[in-house]
Amino acid sequence: MHGRILIINPNSSRSCTDGIAEAVAPFAAPGLPRFDVTRLTDGPPAIVTWRDWFSVAEPLCREVEREEADAYVIGCVSDPGLEAVRTVTDRPVLGMFRCAVTAAMARAERFGIIGFTQKSLPRQRRALQSLGVEDRMAAWIPLDLPMEVLTDPVAPQGRIAAAARELKERGAEVVILGCAGMAGHVAVAAEASGLPVIEPCQAAAAAALLAVLGARIPSVAI
Amino acid sequence: MHGRILIINPNSSRSCTDGIAEAVAPFAAPGLPRFDVTRLTDGPPAIVTWRDWFSVAEPLCREVEREEADAYVIGCVSDPGLEAVRTVTDRPVLGMFRCAVTAAMARAERFGIIGFTQKSLPRQRRALQSLGVEDRMAAWIPLDLPMEVLTDPVAPQGRIAAAARELKERGAEVVILGCAGMAGHVAVAAEASGLPVIEPCQAAAAAALLAVLGARIPSVAI
Amino acid sequence: MHGRILIINPNSSRSCTDGIAEAVAPFAAPGLPRFDVTRLTDGPPAIVTWRDWFSVAEPLCREVEREEADAYVIGCVSDPGLEAVRTVTDRPVLGMFRCAVTAAMARAERFGIIGFTQKSLPRQRRALQSLGVEDRMAAWIPLDLPMEVLTDPVAPQGRIAAAARELKERGAEVVILGCAGMAGHVAVAAEASGLPVIEPCQAAAAAALLAVLGARIPSVAI
Amino acid sequence: MHGRILIINPNSSRSCTDGIAEAVAPFAAPGLPRFDVTRLTDGPPAIVTWRDWFSVAEPLCREVEREEADAYVIGCVSDPGLEAVRTVTDRPVLGMFRCAVTAAMARAERFGIIGFTQKSLPRQRRALQSLGVEDRMAAWIPLDLPMEVLTDPVAPQGRIAAAARELKERGAEVVILGCAGMAGHVAVAAEASGLPVIEPCQAAAAAALLAVLGARIPSVAI
Amino acid sequence: MHGRILIINPNSSRSCTDGIAEAVAPFAAPGLPRFDVTRLTDGPPAIVTWRDWFSVAEPLCREVEREEADAYVIGCVSDPGLEAVRTVTDRPVLGMFRCAVTAAMARAERFGIIGFTQKSLPRQRRALQSLGVEDRMAAWIPLDLPMEVLTDPVAPQGRIAAAARELKERGAEVVILGCAGMAGHVAVAAEASGLPVIEPCQAAAAAALLAVLGARIPSVAI
Amino acid sequence: MHGRILIINPNSSRSCTDGIAEAVAPFAAPGLPRFDVTRLTDGPPAIVTWRDWFSVAEPLCREVEREEADAYVIGCVSDPGLEAVRTVTDRPVLGMFRCAVTAAMARAERFGIIGFTQKSLPRQRRALQSLGVEDRMAAWIPLDLPMEVLTDPVAPQGRIAAAARELKERGAEVVILGCAGMAGHVAVAAEASGLPVIEPCQAAAAAALLAVLGARIPSVAI
Repeated sequence: MHGRILIINPNSSRSCTDGIAEAVAPFAAPGLPRFDVTRLTDGPPAIVTWRDWFSVAEPLCREVEREEADAYVIGCVSDPGLEAVRTVTDRPVLGMFRCAVTAAMARAERFGIIGFTQKSLPRQRRALQSLGVEDRMAAWIPLDLPMEVLTDPVAPQGRIAAAARELKERGAEVVILGCAGMAGHVAVAAEASGLPVIEPCQAAAAAALLAVLGARIPSVAI
Repeated sequence: MHGRILIINPNSSRSCTDGIAEAVAPFAAPGLPRFDVTRLTDGPPAIVTWRDWFSVAEPLCREVEREEADAYVIGCVSDPGLEAVRTVTDRPVLGMFRCAVTAAMARAERFGIIGFTQKSLPRQRRALQSLGVEDRMAAWIPLDLPMEVLTDPVAPQGRIAAAARELKERGAEVVILGCAGMAGHVAVAAEASGLPVIEPCQAAAAAALLAVLGARIPSVAI
Repeated sequence: MHGRILIINPNSSRSCTDGIAEAVAPFAAPGLPRFDVTRLTDGPPAIVTWRDWFSVAEPLCREVEREEADAYVIGCVSDPGLEAVRTVTDRPVLGMFRCAVTAAMARAERFGIIGFTQKSLPRQRRALQSLGVEDRMAAWIPLDLPMEVLTDPVAPQGRIAAAARELKERGAEVVILGCAGMAGHVAVAAEASGLPVIEPCQAAAAAALLAVLGARIPSVAI
Repeated sequence: MHGRILIINPNSSRSCTDGIAEAVAPFAAPGLPRFDVTRLTDGPPAIVTWRDWFSVAEPLCREVEREEADAYVIGCVSDPGLEAVRTVTDRPVLGMFRCAVTAAMARAERFGIIGFTQKSLPRQRRALQSLGVEDRMAAWIPLDLPMEVLTDPVAPQGRIAAAARELKERGAEVVILGCAGMAGHVAVAAEASGLPVIEPCQAAAAAALLAVLGARIPSVAI
Repeated sequence: MHGRILIINPNSSRSCTDGIAEAVAPFAAPGLPRFDVTRLTDGPPAIVTWRDWFSVAEPLCREVEREEADAYVIGCVSDPGLEAVRTVTDRPVLGMFRCAVTAAMARAERFGIIGFTQKSLPRQRRALQSLGVEDRMAAWIPLDLPMEVLTDPVAPQGRIAAAARELKERGAEVVILGCAGMAGHVAVAAEASGLPVIEPCQAAAAAALLAVLGARIPSVAI
Repeated sequence: MHGRILIINPNSSRSCTDGIAEAVAPFAAPGLPRFDVTRLTDGPPAIVTWRDWFSVAEPLCREVEREEADAYVIGCVSDPGLEAVRTVTDRPVLGMFRCAVTAAMARAERFGIIGFTQKSLPRQRRALQSLGVEDRMAAWIPLDLPMEVLTDPVAPQGRIAAAARELKERGAEVVILGCAGMAGHVAVAAEASGLPVIEPCQAAAAAALLAVLGARIPSVAI
């Protein structure tokens, strides 16, 4: 078999889970590991508070213990439970936020983030601290839109375009979409800002491919 | 067409170029962008000094101006000419070192690097400064072996294993192979240290896939 | 009434809870807020893993919602659930680790920490990152002793003295006892190192008194 | 005896000295160390310049050599002479500014400071550098009011409220009153900003209690 | 002989080269090393892009190999080729930008830079990273004037004065003229801002004198 | 007149004062500002403690108020009273330590310091913090020799050579002599380490020349 990458969405939203699957679809190809996307059916509708963030760690650990995979991705752009999940498996475990930030850093020196709501900042800030790159964030701009508006094909375009433009004015050289719910709006942010745009589901897909395929390189020693 | 990722090895070594091609081969798949690997036939045999490092910037710019691609990778683990090449094309340009370091950061908080020779440290240190993560490097250990020994299937294994173990003792949580010439020794470093190992050619391959496929996500707006 | 400070030990150990009560006893006085110490009867025997650390956040929130107090202290030297608990009450919520580190910083520029076990480092490191003072830690030395040995009046004295001395040699100017289980060994660490020693339960008691009494200062405006 | 904490106001102002005594009064209780507050009768009327700041170091050393105490507090929110005074006694010596900043850090990640006058910034910035947390200050806003206005029960309320609100808008999560003269305005700043407010005299009182009582914890070894 | 300090202007502009000579003239004196100023006749008219910046490294190395001197100065305020040139001679090699920034730091804690054009920022930022003082730059303000306007005795005065004033308002305590072409405008920037002004050609002259004369101090051992 | 640079040695040692004069002599030349070196006759024999350090600030201010000069240098490698002296004159005031560290940074990325005694470290560390470059110090090695031994032509050579070599091994790329008393041993440190050596008296002389001559550049506007 070619391997399996399991993306676990810690919230229970089916539409959000579908959006993740759609975002990573371009990375699926014959002979490469396949991407499966699942969700915590008993999880919160979204990870909106610190309490939500802590609450999904244990269910994520159990899901990983239950489900065999070659690599796991925590499918929320605040990396809930990452440290715990890494202790229950020997396989690589990735967080979408860390994957997005590091992917952005490979493209430019200063990144900007479009946040879901003001409430999301402290959790993303904590992850930036763990990466040691808090001071490379040029700006963080929340949309504060309801999830259903955010995932609408058209409704949030103006707000996303405006945020992307403002991030550029404030020194961002690359834009990170700070929530999986914005996955459909990569083009809008890119056109508005003229900057590269990093979509976290895709950044995690690329990182997971590296984690799985990297181990496959034929050792010249054999 | 499915797109083309061009990896340009700034040195003239054919064997080094072949090693890069071998390292990225696992990332090739039907429907995904194809990887082409070329070299600067007039480049130095290896990038060993600052003078070598500066000298390849202009030839790299010319090669990129000559060759159409959807993304470019500078195929040396010191990212020579990266800033210049980014000014001559609108397409994404990636450096193998920055890709490797950021990929390592997605896996753990402290990384260690096995260097080619002591002489390589200043250039990698400069790139770490540009990323702002100099203090996340637990240790940097050079092998100081001739390239032909380094690329030998067996000869350098003991040295690489010892370096990987020492990096772990000194606090590294992930190991970066600091030269494309070590691409064949991922397994040795991984077994010796028990840590994830990042191979820069592959890290760049994954980052390039993200850069090309990321732009392909269907905008929900259309 | 004079106010109540509730210290919640997130583990279920009765002896550990008693040790906390003993450590804060000197701060109790007529007219000052009283200290109550409780525990999570369903909590883990100790917070040893990331999984333990995440698991107590929700029970801590519920306990705080249940119990009226003028200030709350999370009684574990890794501050589990701190961010979550702060969202469920308007009253001050303190973490013993953050209180100990900041108290140490008021005494000297470089601190050293005697850790419970090697496993505790990542959680304390994360909290240091949130404080932005990771680079002020001169050294972190784990004892790796079983809790029952650690809390023994005599058994761990040699190890604690040796660790305190080594911290000083490595540049520490103040010593932090990194686990509530060491509360009884302040004198040993102080005598061995000749440095001030910060005991986290007490550091939290002082910080809680400030949080409660600080609000009591008569406004000159009234 | 229960111990004595001596707070030395390095300026000669009687009203400022009384204000300090009033601020720490809530921390006095039967059985706890008593707080005595004195002043340098030959000191400057206030510490307004670098020259004032340097000039009080020697008199502070002499006062500490003259006066027995279990802990000393330098009663000015710029910590003048702290390093020198620490060399003339084995007892703990605390600076009000360092106590206030570290107390604020135990409450939140970003603090803001309401300064006495623009002239005070360089000295507080130097102390922040010694703590290594300069980049955790969200903003520093001076009042530039004469001391008699600052200590008036009513006059400065509008300015203090406005400053506290602005600190919050600029990212502060906790407010530090940057001069002992503002001790009476804690409530105003708290109500205006909705943030916790740290008053340095009180922060130093709590830190001094910890320094004195901390040494009192019965060693389980005896 | 009294020694020779060779300043090599990496661009081909004769007027720019003359401006450098004029700026360092006050440092020439009997008995001290003499300053010679040369230029790369085949260099670009100015160092405006990254491509220009990389392109002059090799010619600078050759010039240094050709020309005997006791110390060398790279005469452009972006330090092109510095690392490479240092490998081709045992004599001290200085970059005007690093000399200017470090000279400014000897005068005050926060510096501001008046840049040539917006395009110059990334190269100066990279050098600041190598010095580790990126966060000490209060502000960077480009003039975006053509070189012929910049070097005009009168034309750019208003813009330079305005930039100097704005740097002060944004926290700069010392002003750095970010391009040799501004050498004639020291007085304007100083009068407008009331701050010390560092002119890079002169800062490099002083650093070169130190490098040459420093080795001349009679060893007491002989 | 050609201007006067006044170097004030804050200690009362005549031999130390003579050593400073000898160190800066090579910088004197016809037409350039002249260097005068004086001392605080009532100062301590040396600046050995924090108390000494604070005590000379006021006398230094008075001396500067008394003595006309175009620039002032505080002649001790711990920059005592620098902030205060800068408030009593409009002329440039330099500290030997800051001048030495910044001069070293113009030469290389990592510096090492040979200290007078272990007691000197905290004051030099505080100055490094004010410069924001504490983490660029590869190592700090004290000699702990009596001043009369340190200034002996021969006696301390072995110790200085050993310290310089160790600094290099620990990553220093340039060596700073951390006390004016070592001024005669530049050659020894340079030969032993093969690194550039910065002598603070001379670094301050060069910085003072820049401060005085810099203002002399003819404004093109006139």
